[in-house]
Amino acid sequence: MDIKTYISENRERFMEELFGLLRIPSISSEADHKPDMYRAAEYWKQILLKAGADKAEVFETEGNPVTYGEKIIDGALPTVLVYAHMDVMPVDPLELWTSNPFEPEIRDGKIWARGADDDKGQGFMHAVAFEYLVKTGQLACNVKFMIEGEEEVGSPNLKKWCEDHKAMLKADVILVSDTSMIAPDIPSITVGLRGVIHAEIEAIGCDKELHSGLFGGVVANPLNELCKLIAGMSDENGRVMIPGFYDDVRILPEEERCVLAQIPLNEEQYKQTIGARELIGETGLSIVERIGTRPSFDVTGILGGYTGLGPKAVIPTKAIAKISMRIVPNQDYEKIGLLLKKYVNDNTPASMIFKVSIDNSGTYYLFSTNTFAYKAAEKAYQMTYNKQPIPMYSGGSIPIVTEFEKVLGIKSILMGFGLSSDMIHSPNENFPIENFYKGIETIVLFYKYFTE
Amino acid sequence: MDIKTYISENRERFMEELFGLLRIPSISSEADHKPDMYRAAEYWKQILLKAGADKAEVFETEGNPVTYGEKIIDGALPTVLVYAHMDVMPVDPLELWTSNPFEPEIRDGKIWARGADDDKGQGFMHAVAFEYLVKTGQLACNVKFMIEGEEEVGSPNLKKWCEDHKAMLKADVILVSDTSMIAPDIPSITVGLRGVIHAEIEAIGCDKELHSGLFGGVVANPLNELCKLIAGMSDENGRVMIPGFYDDVRILPEEERCVLAQIPLNEEQYKQTIGARELIGETGLSIVERIGTRPSFDVTGILGGYTGLGPKAVIPTKAIAKISMRIVPNQDYEKIGLLLKKYVNDNTPASMIFKVSIDNSGTYYLFSTNTFAYKAAEKAYQMTYNKQPIPMYSGGSIPIVTEFEKVLGIKSILMGFGLSSDMIHSPNENFPIENFYKGIETIVLFYKYFTE
Repeated sequence: MDIKTYISENRERFMEELFGLLRIPSISSEADHKPDMYRAAEYWKQILLKAGADKAEVFETEGNPVTYGEKIIDGALPTVLVYAHMDVMPVDPLELWTSNPFEPEIRDGKIWARGADDDKGQGFMHAVAFEYLVKTGQLACNVKFMIEGEEEVGSPNLKKWCEDHKAMLKADVILVSDTSMIAPDIPSITVGLRGVIHAEIEAIGCDKELHSGLFGGVVANPLNELCKLIAGMSDENGRVMIPGFYDDVRILPEEERCVLAQIPLNEEQYKQTIGARELIGETGLSIVERIGTRPSFDVTGILGGYTGLGPKAVIPTKAIAKISMRIVPNQDYEKIGLLLKKYVNDNTPASMIFKVSIDNSGTYYLFSTNTFAYKAAEKAYQMTYNKQPIPMYSGGSIPIVTEFEKVLGIKSILMGFGLSSDMIHSPNENFPIENFYKGIETIVLFYKYFTE
Repeated sequence: MDIKTYISENRERFMEELFGLLRIPSISSEADHKPDMYRAAEYWKQILLKAGADKAEVFETEGNPVTYGEKIIDGALPTVLVYAHMDVMPVDPLELWTSNPFEPEIRDGKIWARGADDDKGQGFMHAVAFEYLVKTGQLACNVKFMIEGEEEVGSPNLKKWCEDHKAMLKADVILVSDTSMIAPDIPSITVGLRGVIHAEIEAIGCDKELHSGLFGGVVANPLNELCKLIAGMSDENGRVMIPGFYDDVRILPEEERCVLAQIPLNEEQYKQTIGARELIGETGLSIVERIGTRPSFDVTGILGGYTGLGPKAVIPTKAIAKISMRIVPNQDYEKIGLLLKKYVNDNTPASMIFKVSIDNSGTYYLFSTNTFAYKAAEKAYQMTYNKQPIPMYSGGSIPIVTEFEKVLGIKSILMGFGLSSDMIHSPNENFPIENFYKGIETIVLFYKYFTE
């Protein structure tokens, strides 16, 4: 039985199983969802067992659990290790969602739910592909699954868990579907990921909240000062102004720029999709280059003072800003973290205290197109989409894949089937059903070519 | 019976009556406290009737009510119109209060409650002084009371109410206790107030909330841009950088600077009281000059993006900042509002929309020391405090006093008994009991000298 037939015969069951996973509000950054993490881990264990794993187990870590499962058919055969994550991002602002983020719905040919793409939907494709290969007797390699619960908070405990289970995790390649393709009809394989530094800056002024009339013009205002500090960190093109920030940034060779230039990205269409009035970014570089190969600096949250209705004449005591910086080869995330701290320190007025804390950070990732795994993936996409996939640099970050290489000595191949319109991390996250099923087909073919 | 004896005999009753007023959470900026505004208005009506008013009435306006009361003893005698406000500021952050803001307490010789000073405590002093004069047969003029419920939101309806009741409000002077004195042993009379502009700026980026990795460096971030906009509005000394902003600012004549220089303000002590590490402000000007005679620019609130625990990789769609600008003679608040809007407009990148809305605004106020009312107040302070009061410029704003002059043709005299340590508008607002009773004594003396 071919995969298309298998899918059409089991379509409803697959959706039912995925929806069960999507209904679990496994938000890793919110402590009160801790029990949901265990529910999700247990749910994944059942998925793997049902799909054909010999065994599956929920492992405890210092943080959220990891679900591991495997089917070993022959120690002499190659082994594929599938990585996915069961945790999702927070859902606020809830009022912007058309339907409940944890009550999955199908509308307009898409699955709508938090995690529909990132990464429950994409992760579940691997369970289906695996089930098909097992049930139809076509599995020609060993398969291992490692589903973690802390990807969205920087995988703080997975590295140690990998170190502790090195032998168990032995594999030839790690297969990850947690990225996007360029467009529904333009397949791509992610060969580069940016690194990331999530930090929080706290600005502290006077010990007492003060009246803006009685004290305005004499006391330092942490909101004014925080705005000044942040404003100084990037220029009007979004170029980061922290001294030394670009020192190690790799200049893309002309040949790589040519490959990227082939990506047919229509700027007007792109703007329309995301609702942008005008794009920003370093001049002389394409959108694809800016996102994939250049660093960025974004404030992701800011809060201070009175934010209710109407005015309040107050100079608050403090304010916070959360920032997300993306870094690229060959920037060192620890060095950039220090440059950030130095910049803040050098720009602290005598009237203020600025505190910087790095929430989490991770390095960039590069994958060569000149490997057996890449060739297998390339061929699989070509068969499914009838087009040669483009090697692509994503702007996102999956810091753990670099750790996998360091700790386990295994490279990851990023076969992503998401779209930029999937609204991951945002209200109304969705995943087109076509991508879901085509992804499964492609994964099945990857196994075929990888084991041939 | 002298006032000291009268106070000591009625001390407990006065506190009980004031506490009843303080217990009403009459926050004018929060719509769900509307019923509390009516409770406060009714409570004030009872206070006035009990104190000896011939009649008292709660007047409806388009917004919150106004309580009016009067005692007319002889149309040929002068008339004093007392102005106070029954509304208070919001109380958040509630966790910073030592005791419940609406459960008044006496600790360390102070009354602790929202409104203890501003302006329930200071307003109630007038009720006590009036009661004493009536009950002891010493009242030698007509007295009118006008207690409004929207001072903290810019008195949007009081001007019209005054226009509608011009004849009823006819008086020779308006007496206001809604300001501070320099120190417990340094009496002062406020002769200048700054004007104010409360505005809100909204920054709008893309229509969709986007992932900071997948889009960082390509799309404009309303948080980055709002910080840049605000940062450009003032320099490191707090000097406002909006073009044309200082054009009309009156340079203080040397003789006035000399009077202000006599105010014994110890910078170290001042810093300690408010918990400031270092002060800011235009160079070459004293604290008193900066606060009282120079404009200021403060962000009073800012909000955007994800502000919960941990990081979230998001570029939000919008952000807001609330600002409070204080203006001085001879700046025109309407002109400054336009300059603000022009600045924002001139500094809007193509990728963003900035919206500016003026929440409320009002002009500065100047009162001559060369008037009969000022001389009477000066003498009253001198008798109570054994010191000549200093004519002082306050940094605060009571825009309605300028409107009183325009609409009713009556000047206001600002006999404030608050202290800078009273934490008005902030958590732990308080009012020293000594100031409360000495204030009452001084007000009684004002009536004496004003009617002599």
